Amino acid sequence: MKTEIPEKVLGRLTLYHSILIEYIEDGIDTISSPQIAARLNIDDSQVRKDFKLLNNAGRCRVGYSVSELKDSIEETLGFKKSKDAVIVGAGLLGSALAKYVAFNDYGLNIRALFDVDPNKIGTEVNGKQVFDLSRLPDLIREPEIELAILTVPRSCAQKTADFLIESKIKYIWNFTPAVLKVPAEIKVWNENLIASFLQFACRDFQSEENG
Amino acid sequence: MKTEIPEKVLGRLTLYHSILIEYIEDGIDTISSPQIAARLNIDDSQVRKDFKLLNNAGRCRVGYSVSELKDSIEETLGFKKSKDAVIVGAGLLGSALAKYVAFNDYGLNIRALFDVDPNKIGTEVNGKQVFDLSRLPDLIREPEIELAILTVPRSCAQKTADFLIESKIKYIWNFTPAVLKVPAEIKVWNENLIASFLQFACRDFQSEENG
Repeated sequence: MKTEIPEKVLGRLTLYHSILIEYIEDGIDTISSPQIAARLNIDDSQVRKDFKLLNNAGRCRVGYSVSELKDSIEETLGFKKSKDAVIVGAGLLGSALAKYVAFNDYGLNIRALFDVDPNKIGTEVNGKQVFDLSRLPDLIREPEIELAILTVPRSCAQKTADFLIESKIKYIWNFTPAVLKVPAEIKVWNENLIASFLQFACRDFQSEENG
Repeated sequence: MKTEIPEKVLGRLTLYHSILIEYIEDGIDTISSPQIAARLNIDDSQVRKDFKLLNNAGRCRVGYSVSELKDSIEETLGFKKSKDAVIVGAGLLGSALAKYVAFNDYGLNIRALFDVDPNKIGTEVNGKQVFDLSRLPDLIREPEIELAILTVPRSCAQKTADFLIESKIKYIWNFTPAVLKVPAEIKVWNENLIASFLQFACRDFQSEENG
């Protein structure tokens, strides 16, 4: 990635990408910006503006080549460089993420899961093994894995994060509702489902109720 | 909510709220803006600016009253008005969301789950029953439920969304990677985990690799 792409544009590019995957599955070769815009209820000019950020948008007379546009989005977002990660907490959410097919498409490889529950340790989720959490420091050495997806209960989130950091994890994608205390060099990305719900709720429901 | 609160501020307010819940659990009565700022690695002035949006920030000489600040965030975000919802797709992700404790704190009540799998129908997740999807039109009438959380596989996302819309669902919180085709009056909120990962990945990993 040469330039930093704003969050909202990034969100739209992944949605365009999903539409392109669907077109490919349906055997359709070309797509126009108004078709994409209509699908997302946004303005055509917005789509064209976003496409200007792409390295090579593959435009032709009848629109854009679906496969070139897809490649171009992938190249621009840089997700062909794959990233390895582990999931810490093999409960429902951790297991759901281990099975989330779209992660593979975007270069996120879940290598293993970790838990402290003896009933989970030794089982497999989507072909990935669940290990005892105590083995994490050894198992993330070769190949070196720096990203952990944290899906433990809120009550043990901090304690688990402390252990991950001791074990040399550098990036934590935090799906717990806990606000983690971490040293400045550790990057935490909060997947804030509550904030997401509130945005949805405040914008759409309440404007209607108050309006 | 009187004024529209920007997305980023909303995200921070929910993080402040999580910190306040933790302080209450630890029996601490007051909190200062630098304490909050340090915890989130942001600037103190940002915290104080955000608090100006609150209806009543409950400031006192030694800082803010934890409980008043918490009430004030809750009032400002309007999440004391509860919302009923159903989860469509009782797989791992749907079940994880049915158990996600923080939703209750923020006024989102999951009333039931729906699925087409005979092995899931009739079971319970976190005390909530899993019903046959065909029963949804009847079961969302009294009380009227307009919000569906969609957690089915990508391959049947569109077909299921069509059925929800026929059944008079008006708001879809879409956790599938599919981009849904819906009429203009239906509101879809895409929970875009891929975009979230890419933001994290592009910002933090790649800047390091390229730098």
